Amino acid sequence: MPDVVLLSHGSGGRKSAELVHDVFQKHFSNSFLDEMGDAAVLPVPNSLVSMTTDSFVVDPLFFPGGDIGKLAVCGTVNDLLASGATPLYLTAAFMIEEGFPIDDLRRIVLSMAEAAKEANIIIVAGDTKVAPRGAVDSLFITTTGLGAIDQEASYPQSSAAAEGDCVIISGTIGDHGMAVMGRREGLTFSSPIQTDCAALVDLVFAARAACPGIKCMRDPTRGGLAAVLNELAAASGVCIHIDEDSVPVSPAVQSACDLFGIDPLHVANEGKMVFIVPQESAEAVLSAIQSSKYGENAKIIGRVLASPIARVHLRTSLGVNRILDMPSGEILPRIC
Amino acid sequence: MPDVVLLSHGSGGRKSAELVHDVFQKHFSNSFLDEMGDAAVLPVPNSLVSMTTDSFVVDPLFFPGGDIGKLAVCGTVNDLLASGATPLYLTAAFMIEEGFPIDDLRRIVLSMAEAAKEANIIIVAGDTKVAPRGAVDSLFITTTGLGAIDQEASYPQSSAAAEGDCVIISGTIGDHGMAVMGRREGLTFSSPIQTDCAALVDLVFAARAACPGIKCMRDPTRGGLAAVLNELAAASGVCIHIDEDSVPVSPAVQSACDLFGIDPLHVANEGKMVFIVPQESAEAVLSAIQSSKYGENAKIIGRVLASPIARVHLRTSLGVNRILDMPSGEILPRIC
Repeated sequence: MPDVVLLSHGSGGRKSAELVHDVFQKHFSNSFLDEMGDAAVLPVPNSLVSMTTDSFVVDPLFFPGGDIGKLAVCGTVNDLLASGATPLYLTAAFMIEEGFPIDDLRRIVLSMAEAAKEANIIIVAGDTKVAPRGAVDSLFITTTGLGAIDQEASYPQSSAAAEGDCVIISGTIGDHGMAVMGRREGLTFSSPIQTDCAALVDLVFAARAACPGIKCMRDPTRGGLAAVLNELAAASGVCIHIDEDSVPVSPAVQSACDLFGIDPLHVANEGKMVFIVPQESAEAVLSAIQSSKYGENAKIIGRVLASPIARVHLRTSLGVNRILDMPSGEILPRIC
Repeated sequence: MPDVVLLSHGSGGRKSAELVHDVFQKHFSNSFLDEMGDAAVLPVPNSLVSMTTDSFVVDPLFFPGGDIGKLAVCGTVNDLLASGATPLYLTAAFMIEEGFPIDDLRRIVLSMAEAAKEANIIIVAGDTKVAPRGAVDSLFITTTGLGAIDQEASYPQSSAAAEGDCVIISGTIGDHGMAVMGRREGLTFSSPIQTDCAALVDLVFAARAACPGIKCMRDPTRGGLAAVLNELAAASGVCIHIDEDSVPVSPAVQSACDLFGIDPLHVANEGKMVFIVPQESAEAVLSAIQSSKYGENAKIIGRVLASPIARVHLRTSLGVNRILDMPSGEILPRIC
């Protein structure tokens, strides 16, 4: 095995088979993947499934608390969870630049295998393309997830928020974006900022157990909390009112955001979930989340109000109300 | 709408929403996709599904007879078919270089929509990432397909080939690889070579109807017919004997291969299927394929022999037998 990825590793021939066997299959091995067919044949427990796809182009590939592999698995798992599904299966497609170090690839693959194990999702199929030097910047991963939806239960929908519902965030915001940004810019913060990248299986299952009728669930990745709240407000045709002081932000992330002149509400998260739940269930959901892994800093941050205009209102620390808009430019490219 | 893709189109904010709405949703619209959730919630007819993923990095994006969009849809549909599934749903993830012309993106999206329509598959979810100039060479697409497997029927498996079975190829080989290669090198051939890129739904359904017990099915893409035959021989632990003279190659592709010194057996196809079927069904399957769309040049090209060593034998035009090996280098990078 050479120590870098060669063009011939993407040929579909002998070298491809070697790379797949020695690097991917070694760490991802399971009965579905090991069939090595063109497609994996998979049992699903019932006749409603959830399917989601995401590409990851994060730069750098390794950052405090995570890497592109963990990010890809967790991001897709969280999207499945947000749709109300139990994550089951994952596919992973790799685009690799010729010359990429095999050791780095192994490290990423191992990290994916660990994240998949923690999230109880099986990597069932994959693809590897190698592009000539300069055609792709080091490594990109696209993951697609398949989950099972319980037909007897209700599942969350973006359009389900209604007057009186409460908005919960499962923890501090902005950690992922500022961790990647900090590493990319070569900054060291006085308190180190780590990505929050995590698969929220336990947390979401706990919330679901506390309230089977969760209205909306979304993970605030690109565009941050501001984008997700705006999408939910638009889809449900309601006004979402957020109290800025109640939104948890770690002091280190807040300082870094102040330094860059960025609003943490616009910064990507990779291990957080936004819940909109009926008011009567809010405290129970909050306490279930706070007792679960990755949920200790969860907070109720706002309310849903009836409104002729779908929008997000923010009551700022200064006590004034302003409209929290959808972010419109690209603040942090290649953050996920 | 600007006329090129901007970094902000990948931000997850307002510009992303515009691009998704004006370009992707416009052509892909359906009730699942239009929900615009983090994941699509989908009915499946029974409890066994097939799932496959592929990235496409073809260069150039447009080539005689097709483009990257058509290729992505057809490639994934054919992988689902090869697993014995009925294609149902597709996700598409786009990695786009900042500055990519919106008109080219529209053309690719439209081509995907048409290919999906012909293949009767629904594009249910997607993702768009925009990378800064130089981080990705124009545009890459990753598609993931989901299909339904009929639990009552047997489905093909790479390991199922046995002594006496016949090998069928659904048409001429090498067309896709040489069409892309020709366009990339700026060559004009005396008879134009077009990609064979096609979704083989009708053809495979016809073969299945003619023989419910198809042993193996694989589409010979990267690595060509040689790679697929070697994979099947290895998985089944048999010797596959191929008669070179019976393998259909168009005169134009043969000339182009001679010019480049490439064996058409190693060149990628994107609209062909290899079948291994019991001898008694071979003529019926052949005639069903020949009567279906894209199958008129189908041929029986070889037989499965019992052998202590899994390998592929080729009886050449000169009447000598040689081992047809797995291709070991990368002959044509970025062919799919």
